Amino acid sequence: MKDIGFVVVGAGNLGTNLSLALQNAGWNPLLVINRSSDKGNELASRLNCDFSAELKIPQQKCVVFLCTPDDSLSGLVAELNLTQNIIVHCSGSTSMDIFKGKFKNYGVFYPLQSFTRGIEPEWTKIPLLIEASDEYTFGVLEKIAGTLSRKLYRLDSENRLKCHLSAVFAANFSNHLVYIAENLLKDSGLPSDILYPLLNETIDKLENHGAYLAQTGPARRNDRITMEKHLKILEEDPSLQKLYIFVSDQISKLYKT
Amino acid sequence: MKDIGFVVVGAGNLGTNLSLALQNAGWNPLLVINRSSDKGNELASRLNCDFSAELKIPQQKCVVFLCTPDDSLSGLVAELNLTQNIIVHCSGSTSMDIFKGKFKNYGVFYPLQSFTRGIEPEWTKIPLLIEASDEYTFGVLEKIAGTLSRKLYRLDSENRLKCHLSAVFAANFSNHLVYIAENLLKDSGLPSDILYPLLNETIDKLENHGAYLAQTGPARRNDRITMEKHLKILEEDPSLQKLYIFVSDQISKLYKT
Repeated sequence: MKDIGFVVVGAGNLGTNLSLALQNAGWNPLLVINRSSDKGNELASRLNCDFSAELKIPQQKCVVFLCTPDDSLSGLVAELNLTQNIIVHCSGSTSMDIFKGKFKNYGVFYPLQSFTRGIEPEWTKIPLLIEASDEYTFGVLEKIAGTLSRKLYRLDSENRLKCHLSAVFAANFSNHLVYIAENLLKDSGLPSDILYPLLNETIDKLENHGAYLAQTGPARRNDRITMEKHLKILEEDPSLQKLYIFVSDQISKLYKT
Repeated sequence: MKDIGFVVVGAGNLGTNLSLALQNAGWNPLLVINRSSDKGNELASRLNCDFSAELKIPQQKCVVFLCTPDDSLSGLVAELNLTQNIIVHCSGSTSMDIFKGKFKNYGVFYPLQSFTRGIEPEWTKIPLLIEASDEYTFGVLEKIAGTLSRKLYRLDSENRLKCHLSAVFAANFSNHLVYIAENLLKDSGLPSDILYPLLNETIDKLENHGAYLAQTGPARRNDRITMEKHLKILEEDPSLQKLYIFVSDQISKLYKT
């Protein structure tokens, strides 16, 4: 067992995944704090540690991980009792400054990943973006992070937010495009899994060449005839048509010779 | 060796990948036709068959695969000599009707995949969308297709175009979103491979749950505070801001309770 204990606030997907990974890496779970006792007790029993519904951090030497939704963090910090311990949040879009003035040693421990209940991610590959109030705290957080992942980055709040935004474009928005694609396929009587080999090939190509070189399709070739055919299909859905034109124009401009 | 020979017109990525796969599956390569003799000869020598720069189909029993760019197909068909053989194109966005009136047995053999020179795709997983002028031609094309892939679909030209459009949204447009994301990361001093674990997780989740259930992110939660922070970063790029707002609005509306 390693010498630093941890407290996890929030027993959702992130809190569950992170605390189980920390325990696996040899860190000592001290306490699960969660508003609802069902989820909180469940996680505490998996970690074999205490559970509390009360937002009170023990004075024992530990790192406190706030794993609650982004919009709850400021309120949570206001409610927390003072502690000499290190306190971190795990949010990509929240500044480290929410801790400023109240705590001495604080930071951010942001895994660039989306967690799903019941699916254990490959932690060694997950980028961990670390920020800290001081070198001592950096040292502790990087020591912990290094036992989970091989990919650690120091990043300030402003750049972390940019990184979070890039993940929204690349992952959240792409997912929505696949949603649109699935609906078009439904219209053609085709199952949506027909797209998966192409998606996997797209990702492989991206990873090997970067997105600029990996780009293909009618907009890339500025193939007006095909684009006109596509727009005709979208005639009954002006908002999709608008999206199609907008993205195609951006791509065409980018590759204009 | 199977009893049907094939001719490939066009020695680009598709022509190369497809003809090598056909030969691997036991079909007999007869001729490579290509405008430039460099590429044409190279492919013919890999297939151990003849090459011609002249657009003349042999009268020998065979299937002719047109693997040239979409916008060249109509012109190509006009130039072709009459043949009793089966002729097909491999385009998602071109109607089968380009052959009508000129040939007796014709069709479409469309692999829903993007091909890259030098990378052999997993053919057994690639969906092959088949259309034919008549049942005899369907029979021949499906016999050939079945030796390449386990995923065959009969689809008319209109629905194939819809399917092609869905691939543009899911693959081409998503690739562009990753391009945007890569640029944001560059601004933050981060390497673009930092996104790959998240992208892979996004695809896994999509494949397991479908895009509707797999959606995450600030727009999904209608988290106005985070979206405002993102828009502030994009202040200097109005077109990216516009794209962000457009897609976020679509997602938020979809999950409005």
